[in-house]
Amino acid sequence: MPSRDVRHKSAVALILVDVINHFEFPDGLRLLKNALRIVPRLARLKERARRAGIPTIYVNDNFGQWRSNASKLLEYCLRPEAPGRQFVVRLRPDEEDYLVLKPMHSAFYQSPLDVLLRHLGASSVILGGLATDSCIVCTAHDANMRDLGVFVPSDCSAARSRRQHQQAIEHIKTISSVNVLRSSALRLESLRKQMRPDRFAKS
Amino acid sequence: MPSRDVRHKSAVALILVDVINHFEFPDGLRLLKNALRIVPRLARLKERARRAGIPTIYVNDNFGQWRSNASKLLEYCLRPEAPGRQFVVRLRPDEEDYLVLKPMHSAFYQSPLDVLLRHLGASSVILGGLATDSCIVCTAHDANMRDLGVFVPSDCSAARSRRQHQQAIEHIKTISSVNVLRSSALRLESLRKQMRPDRFAKS
Amino acid sequence: MPSRDVRHKSAVALILVDVINHFEFPDGLRLLKNALRIVPRLARLKERARRAGIPTIYVNDNFGQWRSNASKLLEYCLRPEAPGRQFVVRLRPDEEDYLVLKPMHSAFYQSPLDVLLRHLGASSVILGGLATDSCIVCTAHDANMRDLGVFVPSDCSAARSRRQHQQAIEHIKTISSVNVLRSSALRLESLRKQMRPDRFAKS
Amino acid sequence: MPSRDVRHKSAVALILVDVINHFEFPDGLRLLKNALRIVPRLARLKERARRAGIPTIYVNDNFGQWRSNASKLLEYCLRPEAPGRQFVVRLRPDEEDYLVLKPMHSAFYQSPLDVLLRHLGASSVILGGLATDSCIVCTAHDANMRDLGVFVPSDCSAARSRRQHQQAIEHIKTISSVNVLRSSALRLESLRKQMRPDRFAKS
Repeated sequence: MPSRDVRHKSAVALILVDVINHFEFPDGLRLLKNALRIVPRLARLKERARRAGIPTIYVNDNFGQWRSNASKLLEYCLRPEAPGRQFVVRLRPDEEDYLVLKPMHSAFYQSPLDVLLRHLGASSVILGGLATDSCIVCTAHDANMRDLGVFVPSDCSAARSRRQHQQAIEHIKTISSVNVLRSSALRLESLRKQMRPDRFAKS
Repeated sequence: MPSRDVRHKSAVALILVDVINHFEFPDGLRLLKNALRIVPRLARLKERARRAGIPTIYVNDNFGQWRSNASKLLEYCLRPEAPGRQFVVRLRPDEEDYLVLKPMHSAFYQSPLDVLLRHLGASSVILGGLATDSCIVCTAHDANMRDLGVFVPSDCSAARSRRQHQQAIEHIKTISSVNVLRSSALRLESLRKQMRPDRFAKS
Repeated sequence: MPSRDVRHKSAVALILVDVINHFEFPDGLRLLKNALRIVPRLARLKERARRAGIPTIYVNDNFGQWRSNASKLLEYCLRPEAPGRQFVVRLRPDEEDYLVLKPMHSAFYQSPLDVLLRHLGASSVILGGLATDSCIVCTAHDANMRDLGVFVPSDCSAARSRRQHQQAIEHIKTISSVNVLRSSALRLESLRKQMRPDRFAKS
Repeated sequence: MPSRDVRHKSAVALILVDVINHFEFPDGLRLLKNALRIVPRLARLKERARRAGIPTIYVNDNFGQWRSNASKLLEYCLRPEAPGRQFVVRLRPDEEDYLVLKPMHSAFYQSPLDVLLRHLGASSVILGGLATDSCIVCTAHDANMRDLGVFVPSDCSAARSRRQHQQAIEHIKTISSVNVLRSSALRLESLRKQMRPDRFAKS
């Protein structure tokens, strides 16, 4: 079990929030309905990232399991009768992806994401996943406070209603370091090489 | 996959640091030699905790895997030819134990341990595992800064040499909220009920 | 210089965010205009808190000074020609208030607020101040993730425009542990005594 | 009050821990006795740093005051009858130095030090001050976990006894990213320019 080859050196990382999801919570099926709509764009973004040499990091709720067993969680979400199977099956992690668990809403709070980004050499993040008005908002604020560049493609996250999604996107636009845009407008090749000058200033 | 029943409500938790270990690092075999000596005491302490209704939390290095797959790590450490198999096999997690991953030395740094302790209602921790002079020292300092009560049974942790273990124990004794004692002197029944008065003061 | 008598033991604390403010940033005067409107309510809330034995904690931006000299910052904001003088003069800290500095938006991020709340025995916070759509939103999310109870009186914070304030309040309402209400509806006497049962559960 | 000109861009920062000290705690006078011995070396190191363009950051306990008023604390420590006056008077902050407050032992825990280092562009720290076996040990562990380079000049910190100082230095030597050396061996000009390659890797 050699340490994973963090060969991914990239100035940007794609963060997928709560994509391994059982949707078993209040309004879960409403969220799922909107989540299914973003599958093609999210899958395409991930594939583009892979080709551009940009690492994908799943940052996922532990859903109160406290066993650090993501593969068991994945299995649960993929069983035939799972309501979100259609969503999860198309977006599940590949061998080269990273996966860390978070206990609360933000991808940064009490998770090792900071350390992983540091190891990857990433100073910017692209945020996608669920749900726009809770975990994505929190994560965008936390990334901004860490002086990370933040890109939120508005067509790669979803909320319980379109209105909630749209309101959250409007709020996210006001966060200083965040860029909200369509996923097709992301210049991945260029982002992979573009260290933020004001983050890790050299002497 | 219902959220785990955090029925464990207990004022103290047993923290086992880096017990799921492959010992594949410089001086790993030296550490293993000393680690094997503490197995009986650590196994006994864990069993006593279980009987007293005290939760056991494995806080384990992710060993650079970044996949949140503790069962795969456990499997790797338990394969027939694994050097530390004898150690890990006798101390592996049971069904009711908790397990969280940490990316660096301290059990608290960028791990969800704080949140889990809060959910369990624990205001004190008992620290055991590896290695006394790195992860145990760091974790004891961090627990102290969080105003947690800290118990370090000197016969339940190990370092690369007895001298390093002993020096680290001497250093740990100087941390203000830490009690160093023999594991047999731990009054578990009483600790389980004993909320620290100065931590969560009532109005 | 004896350590401050943290005699304030209270289950709730009033947090005033960025109230010591020079308003010297883009759109600062627009923010000030709306800020002046909340002065009577905020001053009244603080006075009610004082009478109820609830501690007030100013959590203030260091405005890039990095000198930990809040009195100098206060002096600067109170000089005769300061644009925000009218705001700051009526809301400035009293002798018994606490004051901590924060480097970024959230009152919790890299500030000692967590430690201070722990010392005070507070498990809930009331949030007021500036600006609703940045620091108040961030702080509400962070308080929620720490399992604190959160009260946001909608008439005690302000943003650059009424619309931005209102949208932020709508977003804040969706955060799970947050209660949005009018300041006059806050039952301070009762909140001071009401430890959150699910935060610091006893064995 | 323009934001401070963080013109200091430097790959290293000198951190002075708990140097603004009233020594009014158990064994404070014992600590002071040893603290006085390091004054010439610490003063000299600070002067060398200044000439080399390396920023000095005082990271100081708030001594339970919770008012973010460092100048009042300094005044208190410098009054004629203050036991530590001789120590503090020779090491007090100059106009260009930075000063942040910490609530507990480590210079990083719930302080804005991380943010300040980021703004300065620093990826290494030199640690001096009080006391070797508590705050300096904690801070060295925390800097190591943040992948910062760490230099601990053994003649620029002190503890309650020489033995405690020496034991702590021996422990600090075992922390992986730490270099322990005499202050005269620090190559400041070179350190100022030397970004740690493994910290902020470029794509």
